[in-house]
Amino acid sequence: MKKRIAILGSTGSIGQQALEVIENHSDLFEVEVITANNNAELLISQALKFKPSTVVIANENKYNEVSTALTKSQIKVFAGEKAISQVVEYDSIDIVLTAMVGYSGLLPTINAISWGKNIALANKETLVIAGDLIMQLAKKKQVDIIPVDSEHSAIFQCLTGEMHNQIEKIILTASGGPFRQLDFESLKKVTKNDALKHPNWNMGNKITIDSATLMNKGFEAIEAKWLFDVRPEQIEIIVHPQSIIHSLVQFSDSSIKAQLGLPDMKLPIQYALSYPKRIKSNFPRFNFSNFPNFSFEEVDNKKFRNLVLAFEAMKTGGNMPCIINAANEIVVNSFLNEKIGFLSMSEIIESTMGKVSFIKNPSYDDYVETNIEARQIANDLCKQYFL
Amino acid sequence: MKKRIAILGSTGSIGQQALEVIENHSDLFEVEVITANNNAELLISQALKFKPSTVVIANENKYNEVSTALTKSQIKVFAGEKAISQVVEYDSIDIVLTAMVGYSGLLPTINAISWGKNIALANKETLVIAGDLIMQLAKKKQVDIIPVDSEHSAIFQCLTGEMHNQIEKIILTASGGPFRQLDFESLKKVTKNDALKHPNWNMGNKITIDSATLMNKGFEAIEAKWLFDVRPEQIEIIVHPQSIIHSLVQFSDSSIKAQLGLPDMKLPIQYALSYPKRIKSNFPRFNFSNFPNFSFEEVDNKKFRNLVLAFEAMKTGGNMPCIINAANEIVVNSFLNEKIGFLSMSEIIESTMGKVSFIKNPSYDDYVETNIEARQIANDLCKQYFL
Repeated sequence: MKKRIAILGSTGSIGQQALEVIENHSDLFEVEVITANNNAELLISQALKFKPSTVVIANENKYNEVSTALTKSQIKVFAGEKAISQVVEYDSIDIVLTAMVGYSGLLPTINAISWGKNIALANKETLVIAGDLIMQLAKKKQVDIIPVDSEHSAIFQCLTGEMHNQIEKIILTASGGPFRQLDFESLKKVTKNDALKHPNWNMGNKITIDSATLMNKGFEAIEAKWLFDVRPEQIEIIVHPQSIIHSLVQFSDSSIKAQLGLPDMKLPIQYALSYPKRIKSNFPRFNFSNFPNFSFEEVDNKKFRNLVLAFEAMKTGGNMPCIINAANEIVVNSFLNEKIGFLSMSEIIESTMGKVSFIKNPSYDDYVETNIEARQIANDLCKQYFL
Repeated sequence: MKKRIAILGSTGSIGQQALEVIENHSDLFEVEVITANNNAELLISQALKFKPSTVVIANENKYNEVSTALTKSQIKVFAGEKAISQVVEYDSIDIVLTAMVGYSGLLPTINAISWGKNIALANKETLVIAGDLIMQLAKKKQVDIIPVDSEHSAIFQCLTGEMHNQIEKIILTASGGPFRQLDFESLKKVTKNDALKHPNWNMGNKITIDSATLMNKGFEAIEAKWLFDVRPEQIEIIVHPQSIIHSLVQFSDSSIKAQLGLPDMKLPIQYALSYPKRIKSNFPRFNFSNFPNFSFEEVDNKKFRNLVLAFEAMKTGGNMPCIINAANEIVVNSFLNEKIGFLSMSEIIESTMGKVSFIKNPSYDDYVETNIEARQIANDLCKQYFL
């Protein structure tokens, strides 16, 4: 019996690589649903190739384009964000790969878990925003949340067979991003194009900027807290520029386990889809002769203020991680539009964190409102920093 | 219910550290039997402290000394190698830690498995000599063989929860020993004292010499073949001078898992005793700030000929690993007695491998005879190399 997969965000970097994995293992997997935000052209070609039962385009203006192109197929076509949250309910879906960007992943993920679907989680913002709700719901519905982020996949792999053992510490590795070796002054002048040149990983624009600011690592820490049920003090970040060790976990007996490999998102994607089995792959193999040295260094917290802010948000809890996520989406967008400078991003985020009303035990509706309020405030602040 | 432990070789390095682990977790473990080869004095003090039901001293000349010292206790005292093989039969033993040196571990281990005891295996020579017999018997008796060698413990830990997944490759790390940076010519002149200075691990004399010649790594490869059911071509050796990554396993999906930590035998000893649980330890913790660089290099096969010979013996199979083990015990002993030079060891081993009758499918008795024959031949050869 093939595993039937819904990919939310099939036209993004993770979505495309997931389809490659599925294509290489068509005996094991089939595509049931694909959804995209805006890229109608690619969604159509994916649909024609993988023949899902349903496609959804979030941008309703593109409904006609997609619908017309698929009119001769048996494929159902829907449009709108609401439709994305609804299609995950299909009985025919075994696992939902959440590969959208940012806040938009939240509602479909909640809905998929509510309907008992296992989740291959590539949208870390879901856990950053509302990790408490998500994990409670997953527990109640007894669904697996299998991380796709390479760091969390690494830890998840290391925890296989160790669920009864106590975690002492989680060590997330960070490449350090493209600006690891710049000094603080130079960071003032870096451009969008500089920030989009990640040394090791080939990813979408938003996450690449988040990697350059290390906000991505901060979000990963929050994600790890929820996924692995650890306290903020149990999470460490270490810069490992070669990105070969994808992360590590230390147990209460002092033993450390790590998962390693070439930086290639296809492995964690495939693992999340094939879990608990591993399946043979043709991915390039790691070889020590190409990496005779691994190095490790501390993060420079002055340069990468976002990481400090993310840890503060994690420790504060409540709706603070939701606030930081919303503010971050706004500033990254402004930076990508070349409206604000690199270092302004942290300043705007920090100001936003101080201005939005804090809620200690937020409901889903509180998160929705926090997200709106934080975006508004961050947007207003951005204008003061316009270049 | 406490786990009741027999330690064969309690006065050696592993045995002493095992007793420390047990002392620190006296709520979980108790000592049922301890045995020693020759060190009556230490055996007596261990017995008085840990109050096992039985002690055995292999050297029968020391029976009176031990017996007299323990006469006021309730502890039973036996002497002789045969007694060591017999005491493992006790119903009151849950797990047998085999921490003797060399060939002497074989028979007690076979006997312990026959009586259904789980084995914490620190005597790698047992698997080197007769891995086929041991693994078949363990399977038949459904006993766990939990490795204590740090490399195999690392792999065993990485395989937890992965038993259904296919191993592609096992990568054993090697410190490279004290002579990693010497050239071939300088190896001719190294002394026993040079060889006993291991850079990272504090171990007994025999294994320290085996580490200096890399025969230890060759034996570990053979041990890994049997423990993890892999082919010789699936085993790689990589020199990692910091000895932090204790070994790695690569699965068929390309993912690599590793176990790491400070070089400290207490962790694998404790893990073998507490398995499948991990228990909290007070061992010093690894910290990246003390090890900011891991390096990796190929083994120099010309300098470390023993490693090549061990792989040849593994590929040849039959009684060849038994031959190489016997010859190695003889040459290491001669080297420790300063009778032969460092490089002579490989030469004598290689000659012995060519002279002893080869048996493709040896029985236990064949192994016994091979061991005698190989020792005789290696001993005779040694005389030709006397300094």
